[in-house]
Formats: sequence, structure tokens, C-alpha cells
Amino acid sequence: MHTTLKGTIRYDGTRFHGWQIQNNAMTVQEALEKALSKIANQHIRVQGAGRTDAGVHALGQVFSCPWPRPLEPRLRHALSKMLGPDIQISALEEVSADFNARFSAKAKRYIYAMDIGRAVDPFDARFAWHIPYQVDLDVIRRLLPTLEGEHDFAGFQSAGSQFKTTVRTIHSIKLESGGLVTPCDADHLWRLVFHGNGFLYKMVRNITGTLIEIARGRYPEEFLATCLNSPGPFRGHCAPPQGLALAKVYYDEDM
Amino acid sequence: MHTTLKGTIRYDGTRFHGWQIQNNAMTVQEALEKALSKIANQHIRVQGAGRTDAGVHALGQVFSCPWPRPLEPRLRHALSKMLGPDIQISALEEVSADFNARFSAKAKRYIYAMDIGRAVDPFDARFAWHIPYQVDLDVIRRLLPTLEGEHDFAGFQSAGSQFKTTVRTIHSIKLESGGLVTPCDADHLWRLVFHGNGFLYKMVRNITGTLIEIARGRYPEEFLATCLNSPGPFRGHCAPPQGLALAKVYYDEDM
Repeated sequence: MHTTLKGTIRYDGTRFHGWQIQNNAMTVQEALEKALSKIANQHIRVQGAGRTDAGVHALGQVFSCPWPRPLEPRLRHALSKMLGPDIQISALEEVSADFNARFSAKAKRYIYAMDIGRAVDPFDARFAWHIPYQVDLDVIRRLLPTLEGEHDFAGFQSAGSQFKTTVRTIHSIKLESGGLVTPCDADHLWRLVFHGNGFLYKMVRNITGTLIEIARGRYPEEFLATCLNSPGPFRGHCAPPQGLALAKVYYDEDM
Repeated sequence: MHTTLKGTIRYDGTRFHGWQIQNNAMTVQEALEKALSKIANQHIRVQGAGRTDAGVHALGQVFSCPWPRPLEPRLRHALSKMLGPDIQISALEEVSADFNARFSAKAKRYIYAMDIGRAVDPFDARFAWHIPYQVDLDVIRRLLPTLEGEHDFAGFQSAGSQFKTTVRTIHSIKLESGGLVTPCDADHLWRLVFHGNGFLYKMVRNITGTLIEIARGRYPEEFLATCLNSPGPFRGHCAPPQGLALAKVYYDEDM
């Protein structure tokens, strides 16, 4: 009896060349497929909800895959042991055969973390964009509503993607204190929390980079609207990967 | 003109063989002395407030050292750049010539972080003791007052130390939620915060290991008093280094 599995997975992306399988570089998808295939004793191909880039993390990436038998109670534990400390399976369940982690997704939450205005902190260096400049956070707060709602985000998309439409809806972007991981004595970490129905290639990092460069005075405030009205590709500043995490993928049952 | 410097320093201890200089292994003291000596163009010897063991972290270690000239405004920044992302100089100041980071210290705060009851979390694996068991935190809360106050802690000291007296005063031990570093979606992290006038060799890790082994039922509750009344050395369970950080060192001006 074939079944379909839905897995929720966390990873520290520092040592991986992103999610998607490629030649000559270890990816999260490859590590996962190797572990699943070894246990199933046949090749198991997984579908991820989102393709995180090299160095990007996940608090709640989701994958789906076929499985040659009913879900064994100990499979999650066995997988986590095989995958090592950088990847953790937070949840594993049997779902209906038409579930596809990518195409069934209704919305996603991404978090982008920044360590602003001092020397790099050893306790979040792997999990934040270190910005050793003065940044005016009020400028960011004032600009965020411009990006919310339904827009053609082609001007915030990096070259190299092949989406049919570049129209997406950002339900909200919130600026909060705290990072992806926060040292217990921190007061220097900030994060942007993006919630939307979908995101184009490097869109979160391109929006974040643009907001920061405006807030430190390197681009004028009008540059945000210029990008938003441009047919693309993006020509501004892309924030580095280590500050970004795919935080949650929403399906029908989560809405 | 010779001056005396006081530096406050944070480090991720994962890749270091502890604080104190030793042969054939990189230590924090050695990295610091190398950087200071290079800038001063003469050998600079530093004195640390506490000797953190291999793998132990610091949020607020303090060192003192002689310096051949008045403190340059850019020295802190230059040092941080030379030391790399694992070590950060949080503060650097000129102090009176009789200041000694170790012997002038009046109290210390240590934090011990634990990731309890599930698979290891990729986002704090380097900064917590992963405990995949059921632990009764109420047992720990009930036992903590036994350890507070002035006691001879010889029974919690590991072999290999040479303190003249083994009497110390623990001002408080608090159990709090949160780790040394806390992922933004965490609810599985706990920390013990120790505040006392001094701590013996491995005393914090030995107390923590004993409390956890009692709280998961491997030792009877009476084992805590047995250790406290023993002449030592410690014969219980030592918690691993990666959960521990020297959080703050208190001097006259901090009291």
C-alpha cells in the first residue's frame, strides 16, 4: 500500500548549498532523499514547498513524498538521527494522495533577521545580516505599507526565475525586535516578518536589502516605488542569505 | 606611559579549547594575546576573570592586561576585526593599575542552557545541552534553595583544581525559560542562572548535571545533599560544556 507523507522540517542552512538537488554540492533535499531512500530501500523523491537558496534556513519548511507502506511510528526519529544535528524533522504525518507540498501551499511566512549597529555578535553571526551602520528604523516602518497588498513584484525578482505570473499578495510585513535566534542578553536584533501568498525568486532578500539601503541613506525613499513599478529584474541591493528563514507554510487546514 | 586595560568579551566557545593557553590547541586567551601583541608590537599577557573550559561560551568574560600607551579609540574595533566572528570585544577601557580581572572580581553570573524533551534543535545545538528525556522541572525548583547560601562545595568540584578554600556563596540559582540563544519559535529551552561570589572547577556543570539526573529519576533526591556533604571530588554527572556561558563578572563598581 502506497501512502503520501507530509514532513515539517527545520534546518540550519549554513553548511548546505540550498534546498534543491544539484551536482557536486550537498543540499537539504539530497540529504533528505538519501535518508528516506535508505530506509525505504528504494529511491524516494521529495517535493519541497519552497526552494531555499544556499545559506538560507528553515524553521518550518514542508516536503511531501510517496512512501511504500503505512507511516511507521519511529520513522521521524530514525530520519532525524540519520540527518544529524543540522536538520530536524519536527512533524511527519500521512496525508491524502493529492497533497503536494508546493502546489497545495496557500501562504508562507518568511523571517529576515538583522544585527544592527555594532560589531558582529558571535551568537547570531550565522543567523542574521550584520549591519554595522546607523539605520533609521522609522523609515522602514513608514515604507512597509507600500509593499502590502496585491502587486506585480517583477521589479523585486532576481534574474533566473521562471514564474508564469509575477503578481503576488503580501498580507503583511512586520518589523519586530529579536532575531531568528536571539542571545539572552540581546537588544541589537531586529526582524522583518513577511506573510504572503507566494514570493518570487530572492524577493524577500531584495525587499529587505532595499529597505535597509534606504533606511541608511544610500538610496532615496522613492527607490522603493521605482522597484515596485519596474518590469524587473531587480537592480538594487540583495540582503545576504544567512538572515533569512522560511518560517511556516500554510495549507488549507492552517487557514 | 604604561596603562592597564579592562576588556569585556563575548565568544562562541565551540571551536576553542577553552580560555587558558595550552600547547597545540587554539584557546581564546591565545587568540587575544596574539592580536594584542601584534598591535602593541610586543608580547602582551592577559589575565582572564574565569577559565572557561573547552566548548564553554562567554557573554561577558573580562580580561585585564598592561598596555604600552594610552588606550587608542580604535583599538576595540581593530581587535574585533583581527579576532574574527567567534570573538567580540564588547567594551574596552583604561582602569587603575591595581585592577586584575581575576582577583578584583567580586561575583560572577553563569548561565546553563538546556534543550529538553524532543529532537535536537538545529538552531541551538551549539548552545544547549540536548536532553531527550522527560524532566520534572518542579523537582529542580524544589531543590534549588538547598544550594543557595554559603556552603563548602568540595563535593561538587571536579578533580584537578587547586583552590585554597572550597567554601563559596551562591547568592541565587534561578530556573527560567529560554536558552543562551533562543530560536524565535522556541518553547523547549530552559536555563539555570547562577549568581555567586565564586565557583569551583566544573561546579556549575556538576550541579546542573546532578539536578537533571535527579529530575529525570536516575538519582534519588537525597543525592544532592550527599554531594553537598561530601569532601569531593564530585562523583555524579557533569553536564556537557556547550550549554554553559560565563555571563557577567561583577567588580566593585557593579555591586
